[in-house]
Formats: sequence, structure tokens, C-alpha cells
Amino acid sequence: MRNVIVKNIERAGHTSVELLKPYGSATIHEAMGRTGLMSPYLRPIYDSAKVCGTAVTVSCHPGDNLMIHAAIEMCKPGDVLVVTVTSDSTDGMFGELLAVSARSRGVQGLIIDAGIRDTTELTEMDFPVWAKAVSSKGTVKATPGSVNIPVVCAGVIVNPGDVIIGDRDGIVVVPKGEAETVAQASKARIEREDHVKDRLAKGELGLDIYSLREKLRALGVIYVD
Amino acid sequence: MRNVIVKNIERAGHTSVELLKPYGSATIHEAMGRTGLMSPYLRPIYDSAKVCGTAVTVSCHPGDNLMIHAAIEMCKPGDVLVVTVTSDSTDGMFGELLAVSARSRGVQGLIIDAGIRDTTELTEMDFPVWAKAVSSKGTVKATPGSVNIPVVCAGVIVNPGDVIIGDRDGIVVVPKGEAETVAQASKARIEREDHVKDRLAKGELGLDIYSLREKLRALGVIYVD
Amino acid sequence: MRNVIVKNIERAGHTSVELLKPYGSATIHEAMGRTGLMSPYLRPIYDSAKVCGTAVTVSCHPGDNLMIHAAIEMCKPGDVLVVTVTSDSTDGMFGELLAVSARSRGVQGLIIDAGIRDTTELTEMDFPVWAKAVSSKGTVKATPGSVNIPVVCAGVIVNPGDVIIGDRDGIVVVPKGEAETVAQASKARIEREDHVKDRLAKGELGLDIYSLREKLRALGVIYVD
Amino acid sequence: MRNVIVKNIERAGHTSVELLKPYGSATIHEAMGRTGLMSPYLRPIYDSAKVCGTAVTVSCHPGDNLMIHAAIEMCKPGDVLVVTVTSDSTDGMFGELLAVSARSRGVQGLIIDAGIRDTTELTEMDFPVWAKAVSSKGTVKATPGSVNIPVVCAGVIVNPGDVIIGDRDGIVVVPKGEAETVAQASKARIEREDHVKDRLAKGELGLDIYSLREKLRALGVIYVD
Amino acid sequence: MRNVIVKNIERAGHTSVELLKPYGSATIHEAMGRTGLMSPYLRPIYDSAKVCGTAVTVSCHPGDNLMIHAAIEMCKPGDVLVVTVTSDSTDGMFGELLAVSARSRGVQGLIIDAGIRDTTELTEMDFPVWAKAVSSKGTVKATPGSVNIPVVCAGVIVNPGDVIIGDRDGIVVVPKGEAETVAQASKARIEREDHVKDRLAKGELGLDIYSLREKLRALGVIYVD
Amino acid sequence: MRNVIVKNIERAGHTSVELLKPYGSATIHEAMGRTGLMSPYLRPIYDSAKVCGTAVTVSCHPGDNLMIHAAIEMCKPGDVLVVTVTSDSTDGMFGELLAVSARSRGVQGLIIDAGIRDTTELTEMDFPVWAKAVSSKGTVKATPGSVNIPVVCAGVIVNPGDVIIGDRDGIVVVPKGEAETVAQASKARIEREDHVKDRLAKGELGLDIYSLREKLRALGVIYVD
Repeated sequence: MRNVIVKNIERAGHTSVELLKPYGSATIHEAMGRTGLMSPYLRPIYDSAKVCGTAVTVSCHPGDNLMIHAAIEMCKPGDVLVVTVTSDSTDGMFGELLAVSARSRGVQGLIIDAGIRDTTELTEMDFPVWAKAVSSKGTVKATPGSVNIPVVCAGVIVNPGDVIIGDRDGIVVVPKGEAETVAQASKARIEREDHVKDRLAKGELGLDIYSLREKLRALGVIYVD
Repeated sequence: MRNVIVKNIERAGHTSVELLKPYGSATIHEAMGRTGLMSPYLRPIYDSAKVCGTAVTVSCHPGDNLMIHAAIEMCKPGDVLVVTVTSDSTDGMFGELLAVSARSRGVQGLIIDAGIRDTTELTEMDFPVWAKAVSSKGTVKATPGSVNIPVVCAGVIVNPGDVIIGDRDGIVVVPKGEAETVAQASKARIEREDHVKDRLAKGELGLDIYSLREKLRALGVIYVD
Repeated sequence: MRNVIVKNIERAGHTSVELLKPYGSATIHEAMGRTGLMSPYLRPIYDSAKVCGTAVTVSCHPGDNLMIHAAIEMCKPGDVLVVTVTSDSTDGMFGELLAVSARSRGVQGLIIDAGIRDTTELTEMDFPVWAKAVSSKGTVKATPGSVNIPVVCAGVIVNPGDVIIGDRDGIVVVPKGEAETVAQASKARIEREDHVKDRLAKGELGLDIYSLREKLRALGVIYVD
Repeated sequence: MRNVIVKNIERAGHTSVELLKPYGSATIHEAMGRTGLMSPYLRPIYDSAKVCGTAVTVSCHPGDNLMIHAAIEMCKPGDVLVVTVTSDSTDGMFGELLAVSARSRGVQGLIIDAGIRDTTELTEMDFPVWAKAVSSKGTVKATPGSVNIPVVCAGVIVNPGDVIIGDRDGIVVVPKGEAETVAQASKARIEREDHVKDRLAKGELGLDIYSLREKLRALGVIYVD
Repeated sequence: MRNVIVKNIERAGHTSVELLKPYGSATIHEAMGRTGLMSPYLRPIYDSAKVCGTAVTVSCHPGDNLMIHAAIEMCKPGDVLVVTVTSDSTDGMFGELLAVSARSRGVQGLIIDAGIRDTTELTEMDFPVWAKAVSSKGTVKATPGSVNIPVVCAGVIVNPGDVIIGDRDGIVVVPKGEAETVAQASKARIEREDHVKDRLAKGELGLDIYSLREKLRALGVIYVD
Repeated sequence: MRNVIVKNIERAGHTSVELLKPYGSATIHEAMGRTGLMSPYLRPIYDSAKVCGTAVTVSCHPGDNLMIHAAIEMCKPGDVLVVTVTSDSTDGMFGELLAVSARSRGVQGLIIDAGIRDTTELTEMDFPVWAKAVSSKGTVKATPGSVNIPVVCAGVIVNPGDVIIGDRDGIVVVPKGEAETVAQASKARIEREDHVKDRLAKGELGLDIYSLREKLRALGVIYVD
């Protein structure tokens, strides 16, 4: 229960991260059996934001960004910062200066269960951020926290080194040991979906493609005029 | 109280839908005596989204999109899907595949009192959607519901066949029997507003145009230095 | 406790407003010792919205925009309308017509702790608005209120004549007597930040620049492998 | 679309209301096929509040209780006031005076999709109220609305004369034509539940009583050590 | 913009506080022309909580109760602590120990725009508290703030020394200079209301007592069968 | 990523659970270094609710309580059910029947990140429940989930067998391996607090007891008249 900064974490391998890159958060979430998805209150600050990288986790006191500074030193190229607070907060804990610092360490983006600011500058930098709020509210650097411990971010457990995939539809966390399996399942899903999409575009119905007519009947749904 | 799919519904006539198309949700809502407006928590997924068409209504269990598949078979060109859930949910019940399927039936857009996903693809398709949330959270197809029954969507009663008008300001429902009357009242309102807008642009005050000075006085509002 | 419209208010001087214009809401909020920031639930209706001007304040009954009409007569070029309601409301109290009227008086923009409508038209006019909601819901003109009294808007006291600065990150209020001091402090802050930004971009760490390593130690944060 | 006060409404029969009285909102909601339940944000102002009666419906402007006064004249012994507002509001639209007036007409209680006040007095009177908020915020009497039209209250359609059942678990609406059928189904449900409760109390499992073991297996749920 | 603790404040006189004591928050809010009421999200921790006293104001960093300790030294018998935070927080900033300390200084109760804990102990002490949340979440003592400056609490400006009246319906703030006038207006209002209550109890209608029939007619509301 | 029911879990030892029983959620949360506390939106259904036991965890589809039935078979005397849903829901997933069943297995109480119903019956049974909502909304038994896997409940990771302590102030989770250490730290904390409470009751100030005067000075807080 002490506050710690864990220096050496095991990250998902570069290859498996690359394997996940082509897929969106919805596909990966489905490929994982509909698990691992953060709550939809986290939103990207611009529509084209996309990220796929390994988590460096940060637990902060609300209204205090001291531990983000400590976390940046722990980051390596390809990492994604995942910042949580110990109780609800919308304060702007991260802005242009921290983004410049993070980028200089190779950080790919930020997931934060709190607020951010300097949205115009972050957008111009094309530094992808998913946040709970946009707020100019400044923070202090006065209270301890931890880096690279397991955290809960927007309802999901994130272990340091897990793969974080974010896009306009949301953010999904892939446990580091499952990245390759999930990438394969995602690939298979996309192939199936492409095939279904072609059939739907030609006017076939989901009712027939997924054999739902029997299910409706079994559930007692009746057709009336 | 059985779950039903109603096959034949009476839709507002094509002509009256066309008559309503030129007007925005605010104008039509005012023309209806300030009624028929859905709650503002429903938002378009892109700013230029616009729709005007006849409602096919769907009542789903939260987290379950089975009945949307059943509803698509009931759709005709010019329809708008209006999807509700029996209790609050933000799950992504509708995405690219359903949009492809809906479009192949001539569906004009979607109003959903829940979440959607594949926002990038839906935007690229220019398939207009108003939703409560964006979420990759997938749904099951396990629980019965109904199609083309009267539903409450975002606080408003929608009967199948009613006209749905959506734009960046919100969504308004015009009962099918009132479409022509409302279109006329909308036209009259726009003409009055254009005239007032010209006067305001020249510097005249609303206080004078709407004769509000007397009202302020009657209400006891006083001017002080 | 009577409802009043105050005709003559003391505004922050033109020069001091001009001095504040180059700075964003986050910088000014920090320069004021992290005070004066409105709650982040107020959002701009388009991302590039920016405003800096003197407040004309309005207190309305929810769902009633009568007093906005009265306020416009009190506006002078360079003013910003700050509209509050006496209890929570999302109704669309302000739209294109009021924006045309306000602009004809030289009003620079609107901050409203309620809803607005005609978002497409307001965006095309480049009339900047920060609001709590977008809603077509129309309002009446039936209930008294006040103009140019001290109000609370999104959690902050606004006195008539105070300087209002709004951008994509939020809205900050500078008391009229403090505008020049705040502008100087903002300038100093930007200069310091530019210098820090250069160092961060080159890979220096905030931990070192802000001497945070000792603080972490003093707070009992330990590094572990 | 005019504002009307409907004088003569058809109410559910006294007998059928009496038949429904023994059952709670959860039982009746289940007996109706899980429909008719208002959203859970409406809460009773005291835990023992219970009501069962016929709806007199009221649609008000937010912050304005004019139409409640008009509605009380329409009430008969055994009625329940169902008050809605045309957009979200927490203002205290109903208090001790209106409760005294309502009670003198034989009104059994109040369901209001807004706020109320005088909670201490209402509790002492044992006048049951379900509301969205408790607020001293007073209202005006300035804007028209309607009485005894179909309304949407907390997500559910209420037609005048429908049966309203409220208790600590929520509020359910029984369409007037279905009251007897629903009462019978409720009775049957309670009998089944009492039997199941006895078996559960003795240690039998729902898994066995409801034959869920096969379902788990069919859904692919596996037992592991 | 410095953080200050103001030692000498002017409090509303003891006599005027006593004059306000008999009245509830709803009456006083009405007597003040429907102003001064805090937002209804602040709730008493027990139903019988009541307070009437003079404000000692506190502005804290979220999650930090350092300044409450500083404020208690400034309290005198008859005071009410009014605690705000600079951004939204539900942390439990106040509990049994602070209540014991406050009571030993003669403090009458607490209004806090954040969370509290030790609700069982506070209830047993009959120490009245209005808060936004109940939360065991502990706070730190690390960040500066101010005592006895004007603050915004739950949407209302509170100046040190103002009278705070809280009950089950809400909290209202009476500016110190207006206490006697408001007490008189409250007395008059209660007398009028008692008279009206008698008439309503006998079956007279608000429609007649307040002459609302003409208003309905003027507003175009029509009676139909 | 398969849905599983884990039959054998390691529970915190009986002795260590007993050691934790005397302490409240606030004390234990502090003793753990301010960690382990669930979000304050979970509230007890009656004020005197208290629980201390070992977690059996359940992950359900929203609106579906199938897995709670499966979980009850896994429960042993002294357990506490901890139920989560895969996306936000307020449906009443648990009521009297499940409570009777759970009690017959020796279950001590329920923590549920969703809704419950039969609140009157649960209160009469003195079956303690912490929930997000009270809702009569019934659920189905159609979708798979898991039992006794690590879950996130109201923002906190719960592993099966962890100790759950709930009271009127909130719910805290003690990892099973830390129960004894936390009990000792809680005991020490209570002793310190009792001593401080005595001093505060006699009029000593927290400023002096905690040596905060120097801190205020160091932080630049100044006293003014």
C-alpha cells in the first residue's frame, strides 16, 4: 500500500502490437468475447485520433499531476500513458507541455480518466488523447501516487504493458499475454464481417444470414398485420 | 403485452414528408406549439447530419439488437429507424453492417436512445445517426422485443409512420396526420422570422419588434442607473 | 430583490481587454492563481470559437428568454453576453435571430448556462457561443429577471463589465479591476512556458526542470524494480 | 396542438383499481410482460409511500405550476396526479398548499417528473409523492399547458384514467383497459413466487428450480476449479 | 488572488438571525423574490436536519481539507461552515473529528459542496450537514485555499457573515444586510399561506383563490369535453 | 475469454475477517493508504446496513441475472455477493427471492453495480444491500457471464475471496492477503483518532494538533483582518 514507481515492466511484444494495429476498438472488443472495453464517457479530443501501444499506468490524486511527470521518465517509444485518479475529477491534468515531453520520449498518446487542456495545441500536434472532460482547470504537484501498478481506468483493469487500442468508437485493453490470439480472432472476425457486409449490401437480411427467424419464433415474437 | 412485429403500418404520405423537408427541427417544433421535441441528450454523430422520413419503431432489451434485424425487413424507402430500449443503455447496438443493410432497404437514417459504433464508417457513408452515446460495446441477440408499436424515444411518443425530422439542433416528431398543417405553419413561421431577421440586422430591437417594453413594465422590471 | 435592468455599468477598459486577447483561458486562469474558471460543462459550439470582451450579465427564468431581449439594448461594441438561469435548464434560449440582433450591437459572443439552437447558422455566422446544451426547445417571454446584476454562471461570479475570455478549453472571468495585472502575469507565464517547452522537446524531464525528485522522496514515493 | 383541459375522461373502473391494490410495482410490471415502468430516477419522498389510483395528467412549462391548479379541479376521489414538464426541471412545483387542495378533492398522491418542496409537511400528511428532486425553488403561474392529454412521464406513456401504482421500488402504469387482466396475472405470479420462495428458503437453488443448468451449458459457460 | 484567511468578518446580527429561525428554506426563498437558493443536489444527511446561522466560508482544493481546519479557528458560536471546492469533488472532506472540533467552537452545522463521511456519528451527534455525496474517501492537507472570502456554493454567492438557512427542502442564503426585511416578508407570507391553506382545505380551488381562470383564458387554454 | 464459473476460490481467513469487523469503511480505507474504496454512487438501501465478509464475484450482462443464480451455488456462509455488469444498467437484478436463496446459503449481503428491487422486503429481512439504483425493472436469464473471476465493481478491482466491508459511508475492498495487516493499522488509527477526538472536544484546534500552522505559512496563506 506504499506509493511506488515501478521501473521495469514487461510490455506486450512489438510484433503483437503491430498485429493489433489494423483493427478498431469494436472489432478487438468483440474478438475478446466482449470484454476489455473502457466506459464510453471517455472521448477522443478529435475525431481522427487513433492509438495502439503499450500501457504505462499512472494513479494520481485528483487535481494533482505530479505522478504524470514521474511516469514520463518510465516511458519508452511505443508506450501509451494511462492516467487514473483516485476519485472523480475533471481537472485539466495534461496539456501541451506534458504532450511535448511525452512525445520526446516516444509516447504515442494518452488515455486519462479526468480532464485535459490545450486541446487546440494537442490537435495541431496530432497527439491523440481520450479524456473525460476538457478543462482549463490547473493542477498542483503536491500529493503522492504510483506509476506502473495495476489500475482501473474507466471501468477496466489495466496492467502495465497491456496493449491499449483507441479510436473514435472507444478504447479497449488487451492483456499483454493475449495480444496475438486477439489479433488472430480480430482478423477472422473482419473477414467474416466483410463477407456479411457484401450480402447485406445486396439486400439479404440479417434475419436470414444469422438465422434469427427461428429465434424470434422460439422467443414468442409474433407477426401481426 | 405480447411481443409483436407489426407488418403493415400507415405512413405519413410522401407529399407531406416532402413538404416538411425544407424546415429545421427548431422551426417545426415551434410550428407544433412547442411540442414533439426529443430530449437534447440525443446528438448527431456528425454536424451535417440531416434526416426527414417516416418512423419504423423498434423496442429492444438493453444490450440486445435482435429486434433491429427484424425491423429492417419492415422498412421501405424513405423510412427512419427509431430504436428504443426498455431501460437506460449506452451499448453500441448499431454499426456499419446494420447501416449497410438499412441503406439497401432505402432507410434514411437512425434515431437511437442508446449507443452506436463504427462512427467513422457511418460518417463516411453519410448515414445520419442521432444517438445517446458512442460505444464499441457489442450486443447480443437473445431477448424479444417489438417492431412498429408506439414507443417513447428520448421523452417523446413516436407512432409508427410518424414523420421524424433530425438536424444538428435536435429531433422532432410530427404525428402522421398533422404533417401538412405543420408544414404550412413552418412556412409561415420562416417568413415571419426572415422579416424579423432583416429588422434586427438593421439594429431594431426585439424589445420593440415584439412589444416587450410594456410586458417588462407590467412584470415590475425597472430600469436603474 | 426587485428585478432590475442596470443601464450604466463600468466596463473593463478597452486597453486592458486588448492586453488579455493574446492569451488562452488556461494561461489566464493560471495567472489568476487558478481562479475564475467556469465549470467545464459549458462547451463551445464549434472548435475554433474564441472570445474576449466585457460582460453584460442576464438572469433569466428557465425556459424564458425575455430578459435577453432587454439585455441586448444594454450592449455596446465589445461586449459578451453572459446568460444564467435561476434553475437548471437546457432549453434553446438563443438562436440565429438573437445572434443577428446581438451582432448588430457589436456583441462579440455568448456564454450561456443553458441551451442554444440554430447551431448551423451560428457557426456560419462565426458567432462564438459556449453553452450547456444544444436544443431546439423554444422558450417563452413571460417571466421577469434582471440585467447587469452580479450573477453566478457555471460556478463563477460574474460582475457586469468583467472581462470574459473563452476558447476551446473553457471560459475564464477576469474581474475588471485586475485585467492589466492578469495580462502581465499571463505574459510572464507564457514566456516561462515557452522556455520550458523547448527544454522538454529536447528530452529534459519535468522531474528535473521542476525539481520534483526531492518532492517525490519527501512524500515517500519509492522506486522499485 | 392547442393547450386544452379535458373535462371528461374515462377512468379505469373502481373494481379493477381495487384488484390491483394488493400488488407492488415490481409484480405488476412483470405481470405486464416487463412494460409500463417509469424510470428509476423518480423516488418516493418517504419509504412507506404507496399509491394506487387513476391518472389525471398534467403537462406544464418547466418552473411553472399554473396547470396543476387547473388539474385539481378535474380530480375525483381516487385519482393520482401525474405531472410532467416539457423540458427537464427540478423546481419545486408542488408543496403543502397544493397537497391540501388535492387531498380535499380526494387525490391519493402525486407522481411528478420534476421537483417538490415542503417534504416534511407532505410526510406528516402521509401524502405520497414520487419526484425527481426536492427543491425549495418556487415556480410562477405564467405559461399555458394542458390537462388530461396523453403525456410521457419518466419515459412511460400515461393516458388519463390509466391506473398508477407506486411504491418504494418504483411506479408502474397499467392501461385502463388492461387492469383486470393484469391483476389476475399479478395474482398468479405472486402465488408462483410464494411457492418458489419456500423452496429457496429450504436451500433449493434457482439453478434447479428454473432449470438453468442446461441453459448455462448451452450458452457455453463452463465450470472450472 | 493570494490565498487569505480573513480574521474579522461582519456577521448578520444575532437578532436578525433569530427572526429568521422560524421559517423554512422555501418560505425565505420566496420572501426574497425567489433568489438565494442553493442547487438541490445538496441534500441533508438526515431528514430532520435544520440550521440557521452565520456563514464562515471556506474555499478548498478538491480532495484537500486543510482549509477547514484553518476555518474552524475563525468560527464563533452560531456560525455555519460553508465549504466549497475549486472543482467538482465527492471526497469525504469532513467527518466526526471535524464535527467535534466545530461543535466545540459553537458551530451549528455544515454546508459542503463536496462529500462527507462518518454519517452515522454525525447523525447521532445531531450535527446537521448538507452535502453532495457521502464518501469514505479521505483527503490530504497539502494545498492552500482561503477562508472568509466570497464563495460560490452550489450555484449561490455566499459572503462571510450571511445567514444560512437549511432544512429538508434545501438551503437558502440571506445577505447579512437583508435579514430583517426578509424575516418580515417571510412572516407575512406565512400568514397569507395559512389563510389560503384553510380555504383550500375546505375545498376552494387555487384557480379561484389566485384568480387563475382569467389567466388561463388569456393564455388561450380551452376546456373541452 | 471464455465464460467460466470458478468453483474453488481462496477466501480470506475467518480470523482475519473477524479482525476487520469492528472497523468502518472510512477507517479501513485510510488504514490501506486511501485505497480500495468503491465509488460513492453505490448506496445502502437502509441506513443501518453493515456487512463484512468474503467476496463471491459475478459478472453479468446488463438486464440479465442468470449468473447470480449460478453464483449462489458457489457461496458459503460468510460470503458477500459482488455483482457487476458489463455496461451501465439500473435494472432491478436482485430482489426478495434471490435474497432468501442467498441467505439460505449463509450469504451476508450484496454489493451490486446495478439496481435492485423489493427494497421493503430486503429491509425487513435486514439483508444489507448496496446498489446504484432501486428499480422494479425485471431482468431476463438469457446471456452468459462469469462467476469468481476478478471484476471491477464501482471502480475497484475485486478478486474472489477478498474482504468486503460496507456501511453507511461506503464499501471498501481488502485484498485477502492484507486483511490482518489492515486490521492492525485500523486499530492503531482508531486509537489515535480517539485521542485526537478528546483533544478536539476540549477545544484544541486541528491546526495545532496536526501542526498545520507552519504548513499554511509555507504554502503562502496569509492572515488578514
